[in-house]
Amino acid sequence: MSLSLSPLTGMPLVAAGDDLAALIASSLGASGIALEDNDILILGQKIVSKAEGRQVRLAAVTPGQRAREIAELVEKDPRVVELMLGESRTILRARPGTIIVEHRLGFICANAGIDHSNVSQGEDAHEEFVLLLPQDPDRSAAAIRMALEASSGKRLGVMVIDSHGRAWRVGTVGTCIGLSGLPALVDQRGWKDLFGHTLRSTIVGVADELAAAASLVMGQAGEGTPVVHARGFPYPLQDGSLRDMIRPIEQDLFR
Amino acid sequence: MSLSLSPLTGMPLVAAGDDLAALIASSLGASGIALEDNDILILGQKIVSKAEGRQVRLAAVTPGQRAREIAELVEKDPRVVELMLGESRTILRARPGTIIVEHRLGFICANAGIDHSNVSQGEDAHEEFVLLLPQDPDRSAAAIRMALEASSGKRLGVMVIDSHGRAWRVGTVGTCIGLSGLPALVDQRGWKDLFGHTLRSTIVGVADELAAAASLVMGQAGEGTPVVHARGFPYPLQDGSLRDMIRPIEQDLFR
Repeated sequence: MSLSLSPLTGMPLVAAGDDLAALIASSLGASGIALEDNDILILGQKIVSKAEGRQVRLAAVTPGQRAREIAELVEKDPRVVELMLGESRTILRARPGTIIVEHRLGFICANAGIDHSNVSQGEDAHEEFVLLLPQDPDRSAAAIRMALEASSGKRLGVMVIDSHGRAWRVGTVGTCIGLSGLPALVDQRGWKDLFGHTLRSTIVGVADELAAAASLVMGQAGEGTPVVHARGFPYPLQDGSLRDMIRPIEQDLFR
Repeated sequence: MSLSLSPLTGMPLVAAGDDLAALIASSLGASGIALEDNDILILGQKIVSKAEGRQVRLAAVTPGQRAREIAELVEKDPRVVELMLGESRTILRARPGTIIVEHRLGFICANAGIDHSNVSQGEDAHEEFVLLLPQDPDRSAAAIRMALEASSGKRLGVMVIDSHGRAWRVGTVGTCIGLSGLPALVDQRGWKDLFGHTLRSTIVGVADELAAAASLVMGQAGEGTPVVHARGFPYPLQDGSLRDMIRPIEQDLFR
């Protein structure tokens, strides 16, 4: 069976308070897609954050001493660094141009996931906004899933993704930061291969694989396709969580 | 436009010396797929390695002193560790059950990519084989691409993938280890977003995103679908290399 990923056309610009599930339902209609059981909807982080009012006006942020010191080191706006600190448990690396943190949500990422692009900007710097990640992306995904399942009568999965860098490879890849109704991982330990060998290394990050696939279709340039519809996900839908994907610190060899 | 990924049905078991391009061409026919310009074929590492004769009979391997010491630490077969050392530039981490290396091909991976599953096994331990990664996966991809382009008359991409773990996240994801005819990265620096902001973090690992997507369809259990056909890759085809994706060591913060 094939896996197909289609960007939804006609999603409007999203503002705080918007009903994302309703916007997605009408974009599905406009895209000619009737939901089926086991379909998955993948949402870019930005629209979820915007709908949840996670924009912060930079002029309202007063950086503390620590933020000012780090900002000088990493050559970033101290107000933005103040927000990064507020969104992080700890800083792993800080170098000119780069700040890598353990996000309060548990994953390791650059800039605490704080985005400076695609956020509406006023006439002057006092109206400059940045966007924090959703407060609880698993919960965001669950709410949208419930609404879309109720309106469609189908069993669905919903996922929120962002673009993450990797430790040793160049280029960002789409990565799952929250999900509902689909597994984060598929544990194939104990499965046999064609020759009857038991498989060796076999916990598969299926949500991240789907996030990367959706990211390819979504693009990064904000071309108005922040939602992707996936059909043909090859594993049974069952509930997963972002927590499943975070490597416990005692198993982390690379901090 | 949609991205669709379809596993090829009817690929036979591959043996050393097999003509992979010819096998793929006939499986495409059996799967009812006529190649079009910009189609991409994604191959699991194992079939490429097998066709290239990269099986090693373990009984023929004599582990040296260093391999025996590391094997004791990581609790692995010293002969397999000897092969891992031969395939690696350096060991990054060695713990019971885990060995992470910089592969001679440049990327960081577990077990030097040496696979113990899906390799045919004889009646006794003297006939046990393991499989090394292809000697030069970019070159493998290029040869298969040339043959398929010649037989189809279409402009194609070909990619070789493996399953890699990640530093901080649980679960393996499909990752590109060699490619021809498609870009490894798309550099969106300087592109504008919807509001005219210049994009911030925008070198996208498109080959790895496609590798993850294909891995989802291919599965890991050796179910006989080691080749995936992708249609709708949203970027212009142009030549890329594994080398493009390896983060230079001076930019690596996490060794």
